[in-house]
Formats: sequence, structure tokens, C-alpha cells
Amino acid sequence: MAESIPLQDRLHPEAPIRSCYGCGSDNGKGLRIKSFLVGDEGVCRWRAQDHYCSYPGFLNGGVASTLIDCHSAWTAFALECRNKGIDMGGKSDLPTGWTRVLHVEFLKPTPLEGELILKARVVKEGRTSRTVVCSIYSGDEECVRGEVTIVMKG
Amino acid sequence: MAESIPLQDRLHPEAPIRSCYGCGSDNGKGLRIKSFLVGDEGVCRWRAQDHYCSYPGFLNGGVASTLIDCHSAWTAFALECRNKGIDMGGKSDLPTGWTRVLHVEFLKPTPLEGELILKARVVKEGRTSRTVVCSIYSGDEECVRGEVTIVMKG
Repeated sequence: MAESIPLQDRLHPEAPIRSCYGCGSDNGKGLRIKSFLVGDEGVCRWRAQDHYCSYPGFLNGGVASTLIDCHSAWTAFALECRNKGIDMGGKSDLPTGWTRVLHVEFLKPTPLEGELILKARVVKEGRTSRTVVCSIYSGDEECVRGEVTIVMKG
Repeated sequence: MAESIPLQDRLHPEAPIRSCYGCGSDNGKGLRIKSFLVGDEGVCRWRAQDHYCSYPGFLNGGVASTLIDCHSAWTAFALECRNKGIDMGGKSDLPTGWTRVLHVEFLKPTPLEGELILKARVVKEGRTSRTVVCSIYSGDEECVRGEVTIVMKG
């Protein structure tokens, strides 16, 4: 079932963003997040390696921001494809986009150990932009909350 | 001369933040930024490795955000130490802090190749917080602009 394949792994093998540090399936030194659509929500489960810390035992804020940025972009992209009936595994005519503004609030220290869950939703659709809110949870605790403004094209 | 030693390398060998992914001198898998104070301005020169890309040839936005976050924190910390006459190489009684809000605007795509320069300034001193603005330049081009709100303690 296609739904069991992470969004990032459905891209055409030649898609340039497969090399992205945050989300690229082909970046062996990257964070390699795996995102799914669950209804209209983007969901990502991720585990940090030890070197992604800030103070020992806690997730680095820049890494948290990277997770939020990429997962939010994937959520917007996947919804755009779904809404327009576009096969995201195609080689051309895909919507593209880039982040214009990334705003991140660090609510609580995020534990480095254990699974983190990101949940993202598109909250505003402009003519050429999408605004996505995305939080990182450790268990039931919302640790980081971000808002990402993405410029869309195509 | 002490001024030629990067701020990060002046910390006591047991300082916990030496393991930070963005700035820790002891994190062999991190970004290992090196910051200096030039007057009241924090300056950092940094070169990306290939895997820190977004689209091929351009710096990942999350990595840019990590650079801005850590360099801004170091600028605030170093000024705090200087203004209070604190030896940042000491083992205790150092000011500490953590980022509360990170706001980043991506003005232009940032080239992956070549030296990047970050310049940061404290623009607001609250009782328990510092607001720092920090930009990333490629040559004369301002590519990314951030504002970081840091909660200070000590």
C-alpha cells in the first residue's frame, strides 16, 4: 500500500530534493526524516543520535528547527499533490517550494532519548504560499512549536 | 593573544556545552562554528560540507538556522562575560542561557560553496533576556536574517 511508504521515498529517483540534509532519502549524513499524511495532518516519528544534542541529554534547537522546516514543507507539498491529483513520484510538473520564514518557539527542553513525534497542519493557503504549524512532542509533552511560511510554485 | 582564540575554544574542558551539535568544540560530528567578538559584534566564518545542502548547491535552511542560533547565543554570552568581567574559561559562576524563540527569514538562496560570514548584534537587553539579530552573508549578499531571543541566567 502506497500509504505505508514515507512521502520522501515516493519521489522520483532523480528528484533533486532527495539530497536534502533534513529530509533527503539519499543523504546518508542527513536527518532523513520520514513523513506521512494522516488525514490532513503530516506526521513524522524520529529518533535523535547522540551528537544532535545541545546541552547533554537534550535535542539541539537547530536540529529541532530543521525537523520542523522539512516536515512542514513535506506536509504542504503532499497536500498540494493530493488536492491536485498529482503523482509525487513523477519526473516533472511537480509543485515546488522553499521556506521564506521559519519561526520556532522552544517551550520545554526536548529529551534527546526516545521517539519524537512531529505533527504539522496547513493553517493558511495564500495564492502562492502556505503557512504550516508544526509541533514536536516527546510523549504527550509539546516541547517545540514552529510556524513555517512556504512559497509555492507550480 | 586571547582574542585570536575562538570563543568556543576558551571554555573550560568540562563545560557541558562543548558537546553542542552547532557550536561544541568537542562534537566531532557537529557544525563546530568558531565565533569571535569584534567590538560589540559577533563574527563567525564557516564553510559548509556538501551534505548540508537543501536543493543541490544551496545551504539547507535548518543548518542556516542552527548557525544563527548558536552564533547568536555565543555573541550574547561573550558580551555578558565581557561586561561583567567574567572569565569564560572558568569552571563555575558562568552565565547560562537557552533560546526561547528563533525567527529566521530566508532572503535569498545561500550558496553551499565558499565561505559564509555570520554577523550578530545584541539589540535588546531585558532583565533576563537578550535579543540578538544575526545575518548570514555570502560575499556581500545578505542571504538569511535571524532574530534570536535568549533567556539568560546567572
